[in-house]
Amino acid sequence: MLKATIDADIFRESIDSVSALVGECRLHVNENGIKTRAVDTSNVAMVSLELDADAFQSYSATEQEIGLDIAKMKNILGMVGKSDPIDLELDAEGKKLSISFRSYRYSISLLDTKTIRKDPNPPNLNLPAVVTITGDALNNAIKAAGVVSDKIALMVDPERSVFAMVAEGDSDNIRLELGQDEVTFVELAEARSLFSLDYLKDMGKVMGRASSVDIRLGIDHPVQFAFTIASDKGRVGYLLAPRIEAD
Amino acid sequence: MLKATIDADIFRESIDSVSALVGECRLHVNENGIKTRAVDTSNVAMVSLELDADAFQSYSATEQEIGLDIAKMKNILGMVGKSDPIDLELDAEGKKLSISFRSYRYSISLLDTKTIRKDPNPPNLNLPAVVTITGDALNNAIKAAGVVSDKIALMVDPERSVFAMVAEGDSDNIRLELGQDEVTFVELAEARSLFSLDYLKDMGKVMGRASSVDIRLGIDHPVQFAFTIASDKGRVGYLLAPRIEAD
Amino acid sequence: MLKATIDADIFRESIDSVSALVGECRLHVNENGIKTRAVDTSNVAMVSLELDADAFQSYSATEQEIGLDIAKMKNILGMVGKSDPIDLELDAEGKKLSISFRSYRYSISLLDTKTIRKDPNPPNLNLPAVVTITGDALNNAIKAAGVVSDKIALMVDPERSVFAMVAEGDSDNIRLELGQDEVTFVELAEARSLFSLDYLKDMGKVMGRASSVDIRLGIDHPVQFAFTIASDKGRVGYLLAPRIEAD
Repeated sequence: MLKATIDADIFRESIDSVSALVGECRLHVNENGIKTRAVDTSNVAMVSLELDADAFQSYSATEQEIGLDIAKMKNILGMVGKSDPIDLELDAEGKKLSISFRSYRYSISLLDTKTIRKDPNPPNLNLPAVVTITGDALNNAIKAAGVVSDKIALMVDPERSVFAMVAEGDSDNIRLELGQDEVTFVELAEARSLFSLDYLKDMGKVMGRASSVDIRLGIDHPVQFAFTIASDKGRVGYLLAPRIEAD
Repeated sequence: MLKATIDADIFRESIDSVSALVGECRLHVNENGIKTRAVDTSNVAMVSLELDADAFQSYSATEQEIGLDIAKMKNILGMVGKSDPIDLELDAEGKKLSISFRSYRYSISLLDTKTIRKDPNPPNLNLPAVVTITGDALNNAIKAAGVVSDKIALMVDPERSVFAMVAEGDSDNIRLELGQDEVTFVELAEARSLFSLDYLKDMGKVMGRASSVDIRLGIDHPVQFAFTIASDKGRVGYLLAPRIEAD
Repeated sequence: MLKATIDADIFRESIDSVSALVGECRLHVNENGIKTRAVDTSNVAMVSLELDADAFQSYSATEQEIGLDIAKMKNILGMVGKSDPIDLELDAEGKKLSISFRSYRYSISLLDTKTIRKDPNPPNLNLPAVVTITGDALNNAIKAAGVVSDKIALMVDPERSVFAMVAEGDSDNIRLELGQDEVTFVELAEARSLFSLDYLKDMGKVMGRASSVDIRLGIDHPVQFAFTIASDKGRVGYLLAPRIEAD
């Protein structure tokens, strides 16, 4: 059973955060809220989303799994006004989800959860450097790197207290250095890893709306991004594997 | 003879209403105004437009027929400012139309009216249900249906006083029900017909600007839309044939 | 040596004026400022740009030539905010240009000036008619002509004191006549030449932002456009060869 009402904007940012990486996902629903965790088709990036029951205007649910076509949900949300409340309701057999707003009522078939990749296990990572940055600054840096390259190195220099992003193209490069005026160093430790901009660009569009993003980094290790949505009643995490740096 | 001045916005909405269905048309001009009626190439939809002489800032004309390339006229109107007055003048032989605004003067060749399909006869229809809705609500419903299907059923349920639109896709559907708060039931009668969204989408963009649209419906019959333009000094009608519902 | 700071908007309009015609150019740098002159690949149009040292917030340079990839510079400028100051600095060997704004620092490889076409010599032209027009009016006229044709005749009628633009398509034409209310006749003389709209459209987008453009014309001669940028501390010139009018 699932019967809930949610503000259109909150639902939209939740769906967008997942659709940056995957086209379908398995939602774990219980009385405390909704969770999902999914890996992109090439196993390079992982997204996790948790939306608490009190992120909804009203919420009542029993434990179950729902297979959701994220791309279709995005299209439907395109029809919803900015702050319309949306009613979500699962049918008795758990095969259809009804999405109602104003006088409209969509009914969509859910995916068979058996056909969706099984939930990834979050790896046990030791990422010693932790930096907090505004979502806007992070997204701009990702876009600026894309002008000259298809990959970006994220670095922390603990001695100079600098968070740096460097992108090197065939003949050009860009370097961005941010100090304590622009970022918060939650944990200072040496870090340097290289990432593909392909994935970061899509994540960056979503993170660009967050007021702050925590970045966890190591040396040639994955990067982890964490930020809240829904006035802190929801949490999104991205994990991205590093690229091997060729010499 | 035709010599007239018209507000750019009024002329634009007149041309747009016709160009939603056809790329060229035969204008019937006389001292009372301008009329046209045209059927799309696949004979599924018909548009009629009447623009009264007093929709123009100045107007003088004698009876004649003009073959107009609507698509070309749309391009020219793209160059005209929002509220520029436009001067229209036919040359002596009736082969060229001059379109002037500010210091610009376009001269376009008219089409030979013999090469344009002959005027369709409006069918004699008995459409017992009549509903009035805002253009915006109608256009939004058409767009919402397009997310899950390529056809839409328009229905009136006289017992519940409900105007409903239902679109069924392969696995999803959408239902919109509007009661007396949202539409006016001019004539309550049972109605249900299925239509292709292809045509409705283009009509919907034009109707979306109308403050109100009259919809006439029957059972497995065409639908007729009627609305005014030019501060009620012009009238547009659309007629759309039903699709046969397969079981 | 080159070390300079410039307002992003001024640098952008300088680069845009050149990129309307060519993808790379040779910049002549000395203590007085920066100059370039380039011809498009088909030898039909020429652009010249002069940016005085005092168009920069700070400027110090010695004489040298720089090969610049204009298209790449445009992409980088897309990342810069509207009024960010941009620091430009050449490396010691003159092979890399660093472009810094906020905390970002791009480093781009310069082109070998030997691989860039040699500087065109400006032809010695006698263009007796000179008209001044707002950039906006000029750009609108170019766009309006594009609706019916791919070429435009620019004319001055000294007897009627009229500057006219005429575009003739296969079946349609447009004529724009501007008198002393709308243009300034600096030199009244008979002029009439035909030009390809392909080139004029790209130039028109740049000229559309100029408060005024001087147009110099003759009979079947090139047209010359001149306007200032950077609060009169920079000058742009376009020269466009005429098309031969077929009968």
